[in-house]
Amino acid sequence: MQEQQYEFEIDLETERIEQLLQSNNLVDFREEFLSYPLYEQAQIYRNLNEESRLQIYSYLSPQEISNMFEILEEDIESIEEYLLEMNKQYAADMLGEMYTDNAVDMLQQLPTDEIPTYLRLMDAKQAKQIREIIHYEDETAGSIMTTEYVSLKANQTVRSAMAILKSMAKEAETIYYTYVINTEGQLVGVLSLRDLIISNEDVMIRDIMSDRVVTVNVDDDQADVAHVARDYDFLALPVIDENNVLLGIITVDDIMDVMHEEATSDYSGLAAVDVDEVTNNPFEAAKKRLPWLITLLFLGMGTSSLISNYEGLISEAAILSVFVTLITGTAGNAGTQSLAVAVRKIGQPETEKRNFSAMILQELLTGLISGLVTGITIMIVVGIWKGNFILGAIIGFSMLMAITVANLAGSLIPILMDRLGFDPAVASGPFISTFSDLTSVLIYFSIAQYFLSNFL
Amino acid sequence: MQEQQYEFEIDLETERIEQLLQSNNLVDFREEFLSYPLYEQAQIYRNLNEESRLQIYSYLSPQEISNMFEILEEDIESIEEYLLEMNKQYAADMLGEMYTDNAVDMLQQLPTDEIPTYLRLMDAKQAKQIREIIHYEDETAGSIMTTEYVSLKANQTVRSAMAILKSMAKEAETIYYTYVINTEGQLVGVLSLRDLIISNEDVMIRDIMSDRVVTVNVDDDQADVAHVARDYDFLALPVIDENNVLLGIITVDDIMDVMHEEATSDYSGLAAVDVDEVTNNPFEAAKKRLPWLITLLFLGMGTSSLISNYEGLISEAAILSVFVTLITGTAGNAGTQSLAVAVRKIGQPETEKRNFSAMILQELLTGLISGLVTGITIMIVVGIWKGNFILGAIIGFSMLMAITVANLAGSLIPILMDRLGFDPAVASGPFISTFSDLTSVLIYFSIAQYFLSNFL
Repeated sequence: MQEQQYEFEIDLETERIEQLLQSNNLVDFREEFLSYPLYEQAQIYRNLNEESRLQIYSYLSPQEISNMFEILEEDIESIEEYLLEMNKQYAADMLGEMYTDNAVDMLQQLPTDEIPTYLRLMDAKQAKQIREIIHYEDETAGSIMTTEYVSLKANQTVRSAMAILKSMAKEAETIYYTYVINTEGQLVGVLSLRDLIISNEDVMIRDIMSDRVVTVNVDDDQADVAHVARDYDFLALPVIDENNVLLGIITVDDIMDVMHEEATSDYSGLAAVDVDEVTNNPFEAAKKRLPWLITLLFLGMGTSSLISNYEGLISEAAILSVFVTLITGTAGNAGTQSLAVAVRKIGQPETEKRNFSAMILQELLTGLISGLVTGITIMIVVGIWKGNFILGAIIGFSMLMAITVANLAGSLIPILMDRLGFDPAVASGPFISTFSDLTSVLIYFSIAQYFLSNFL
Repeated sequence: MQEQQYEFEIDLETERIEQLLQSNNLVDFREEFLSYPLYEQAQIYRNLNEESRLQIYSYLSPQEISNMFEILEEDIESIEEYLLEMNKQYAADMLGEMYTDNAVDMLQQLPTDEIPTYLRLMDAKQAKQIREIIHYEDETAGSIMTTEYVSLKANQTVRSAMAILKSMAKEAETIYYTYVINTEGQLVGVLSLRDLIISNEDVMIRDIMSDRVVTVNVDDDQADVAHVARDYDFLALPVIDENNVLLGIITVDDIMDVMHEEATSDYSGLAAVDVDEVTNNPFEAAKKRLPWLITLLFLGMGTSSLISNYEGLISEAAILSVFVTLITGTAGNAGTQSLAVAVRKIGQPETEKRNFSAMILQELLTGLISGLVTGITIMIVVGIWKGNFILGAIIGFSMLMAITVANLAGSLIPILMDRLGFDPAVASGPFISTFSDLTSVLIYFSIAQYFLSNFL
């Protein structure tokens, strides 16, 4: 498989680079290392020990190493270590060479009080651009945008536009989209390099630009930004403020990172664990997972103390205890399903408009239907198995009620969390199933008690 | 929020378009409709009823409507309806105008026996390109690639390359990357439009192309392709066969769709429900969820019949039944956590190399540690609550064992499924927790019986 073969190559390349470093072969190292694609440079660098990395800092210019770090910035775990082992001036120069959004991402990995030091050591213009972006709130459009874009004026020709493009091709993060602004810096049009290339050189930008620009607001949630980019199949999105002033652009490589980030956090939320848990150390893994386990353990204690109220009933009819896990388990499964659907629907921008009560009603009905089918099934099975259709009726009816309540909770709880401003994805599957254990047990034993005292 | 406001615009635009159609105002309709961004055209079209859509087919040429369908193809639910309501020749012409990969996606929504009809009605060259791609297996690189790319020769100048680019700018899916092939059609280099633009017009392609091309194989899994694209921050990836012959390219807009698809299927798998469930009809929703619920119900019956073997024990010590759900619930939560981590790790290409036994051992240890902490906690709590530390010990020890086993199952089961060629994501959280109900109950009652017969 592509990936395997490529992993294999990286290992070979790393060995080769290590040898060149050990033999202090500056010339061959530079030729070999710089010939690799940036991502592979990053992988090799990551595989090296600190000693070799320090050697690299003396073999490569800040400019050369900055290209590699444009890719490496995604590897948040180690950025701090890398930056702090560098000479501060060298690090500052490297950050200065990087695209603003990536430089900001990296600086944010450092202790807050360290950041000013690097900004001071940095080229003034770069430092200014970084200061402009670094204050935007995390996970907003502003925090992932870059200010290195190409802007044009409506009253210039394609020829002059192409001249600007060529001059900016090196520093701009993308030259494939250019943005037309007026004298107030407001965004008035967009133009792709494709449009420029196929147009006559004397045509005015005004005449070929599209003035229906799809934009995102600087405060928009990054998830919504990703949604727009994916819907429109754009390679970059312009970011504006409330006065339609162009502040920066978000390029598709950052969009892909956001999509990955969002997907991972949804997935993690559903399982109540950080699935990007990179550690192979069981102690650290356990440390990350225990908070949820212990919290839910105490929620589970609630269920236990509830059951202990029915100890008398159980010692009379021990058979009841046979079906507790069946009811709690099935209701938990139904609740998890409805939770996952609800979290996804909430995450979709269209839902913003849609009223939640409709969603809840639907889950309620879905629960009733699933509950009815499951309840009748289990009623028959138990009735036949235990030759006792009253027992079957108890289990079946409890199942129906428990599933309905679980479905309701599965949609209600994330919606409430969303309304209260929490991330709905925090309402995890384990939380819902532990919660529905409580309700299911309550339902089951109340119904059982009622039946037994009235029909037996 | 951006999305809201934009949703709002779509509604207004739809109304305007409906009016223009009702007043049979061909000219204004064309001017208005075609002035919208393609995604908005698609949204409006989607909001219209069949009658209005039929009218649109008579107002817009196949070429004009094809642009909109380049975006609409992602909306798989309705494609078949749209295609079948069109005149067959019109539909064939439209498909012929589309990028091959999108045309293939759309054709694949039709009943298989319908496809040849459209291919026959289509322009021969287009039909040939589609036939080349349509046979690639679903979810492989081949199935998402397009054949509309720009290829150059190493021994031509930048000037002639730019001429080719301009001539192909309209039909190529991207002109921002160009691929250099030799006379055997093998891929020998890659070149970005950025490189071309900043180079002197007389330079030879050979001298500015990069000959270290990152490629994917036509049979690679689409998830791995997305991984490569995201890692390298590429806007397009070349697809080759085993002889390094260039077959097509995959553009970043398709990569984003794959990322979304993969994330959704992982998420759905974990919750044992299709979260893209678009229906608002409770019956359909229940129909989609019930198969899992019922399957797991019968797995849960296993747990019940297991418990019924211990009815005697329970009627003696009803207190035991108080903690069943606590142990099964907590173990289920731990199992879900370890499942999610395992599925994610399996999904990462790097894991291919890494041996799974290490992963399983790690989960075993993680389980032991979490189990130890949770077990001791609950032992103390129960000991104090019930003033009975033997009971506490029974619960605590059972908890330790149950969590360890659940963690083991959480990693072992998806790994086995992967080894057996199934999608590991199918081992859902509900499945793992239902499964661990069984093992937990077995552990709990065996331990309880042992303790009670030996210490009381």
